Amino acid sequence: MPRNLVIVRHGQSAWNEKNLFTGWVDVDLTPLGEKEARAAGEQITKAGLRFDVMHTSLLTRACRTANLALEVTGQTWLPVNRTWRLNERHYGDLQGKDKVEMVKAFGEEKVKLWRRSYDVPPPPVTPDHEHHPSRDPRYRLLAPDAMPASECLKDVVARVLPWWHDQVIPQLRAGLDVLVVAHGNSLRALIKHLEKISDSDIVELNVPTGMPRLYTFKEDLSLASAPKYLDEAAAKAGAEAVKNQTAKK
Amino acid sequence: MPRNLVIVRHGQSAWNEKNLFTGWVDVDLTPLGEKEARAAGEQITKAGLRFDVMHTSLLTRACRTANLALEVTGQTWLPVNRTWRLNERHYGDLQGKDKVEMVKAFGEEKVKLWRRSYDVPPPPVTPDHEHHPSRDPRYRLLAPDAMPASECLKDVVARVLPWWHDQVIPQLRAGLDVLVVAHGNSLRALIKHLEKISDSDIVELNVPTGMPRLYTFKEDLSLASAPKYLDEAAAKAGAEAVKNQTAKK
Repeated sequence: MPRNLVIVRHGQSAWNEKNLFTGWVDVDLTPLGEKEARAAGEQITKAGLRFDVMHTSLLTRACRTANLALEVTGQTWLPVNRTWRLNERHYGDLQGKDKVEMVKAFGEEKVKLWRRSYDVPPPPVTPDHEHHPSRDPRYRLLAPDAMPASECLKDVVARVLPWWHDQVIPQLRAGLDVLVVAHGNSLRALIKHLEKISDSDIVELNVPTGMPRLYTFKEDLSLASAPKYLDEAAAKAGAEAVKNQTAKK
Repeated sequence: MPRNLVIVRHGQSAWNEKNLFTGWVDVDLTPLGEKEARAAGEQITKAGLRFDVMHTSLLTRACRTANLALEVTGQTWLPVNRTWRLNERHYGDLQGKDKVEMVKAFGEEKVKLWRRSYDVPPPPVTPDHEHHPSRDPRYRLLAPDAMPASECLKDVVARVLPWWHDQVIPQLRAGLDVLVVAHGNSLRALIKHLEKISDSDIVELNVPTGMPRLYTFKEDLSLASAPKYLDEAAAKAGAEAVKNQTAKK
């Protein structure tokens, strides 16, 4: 029997709208983001998909996207695992800064390198910086040496994979259907792994907000069919919009 | 350092309002119930309480009460454990029946016995009944011989205690603050255990909806102070209203 994995990026957040680097800053959804979350639930319902378990990050925008989508699907009761391993990439000292301003200050190539390069992290925050995870009570049980002060996508892959291997794989092997609600870069890390995308090709991959993407696995966990967004046309338009966020205005 | 446990009964559900026996039927909150959930969050915020982990049942009215309360407190990201062990008491064949009608049909004493006696369960549902847990996909991973077809409060105590001992006690011992959002009878079972209430005295205990009750434990997990509702006056009025649900109209 095939098992399904659906991944969804949270709806628009207040800082997506303002075009600021967000990372681990706990910004809430905008009204449009809430609408995108419910629309994701509608796509899931229409596709007839149901789940046995859900995973989210520890950030409000992903948790609330999950809550809103599940209210629409009637699966509010779904068991949920919240983990820092699904958090957005920590953008270090760029957090709270304007994307277009950063392009003006440092140039498009440098900002694209920080945004999209596989292995160049942005400048880190210091331990006493307000954006250091040690200042946020939700990470108080996390090992200090696991707390990022800045991450490149390679770092995100490294912290997402233990969750994938230890939490999700056993669930898929057991025949469960899994929902994941997370962030642009934690999902890029996962997609890179699942679809064997090279370090260079991943730079151009953008994940649209609120668009459920379906993976169907055989019992041996090889893909039963090509992964797809439930609404391919809308997802393509959404990915294009993400790509244009650093366009000069 | 003291550790806090707060327990909250979900807000008014559509069947609370209609005065029907609900049990494991997955009825949603009313607009009043949503308001009660947010008010519970406001009481928690005002008391300056924060948590490390939350537990809910697998029923929508408890999950949504928790979601709404946490949005108010700003702890939407709280790790959550959903468990059938916190579900409302399974009311067997009384589920979906009107409380006042049942009093008319069977007499006040019989209905009070079914509602409140410690060890007399209502008539069970058969395995092919629509209210049998085996018909609901959310219980598909639950052992068939653990699925109740009807429960008295003693049965609920028996299934709540393994959760208390295996999940919550280790968290409190580790110094974590714990939030529980559940149901009238799963909370009566817990209160009975925590406050050492006798099998006969528990009959008269009613839990008001949406009223956070605080337990503060010392390091050895003895009570540091008397348990209390965050708003004692409102809680007393609420408990009185629950008591009067079977009053003849």
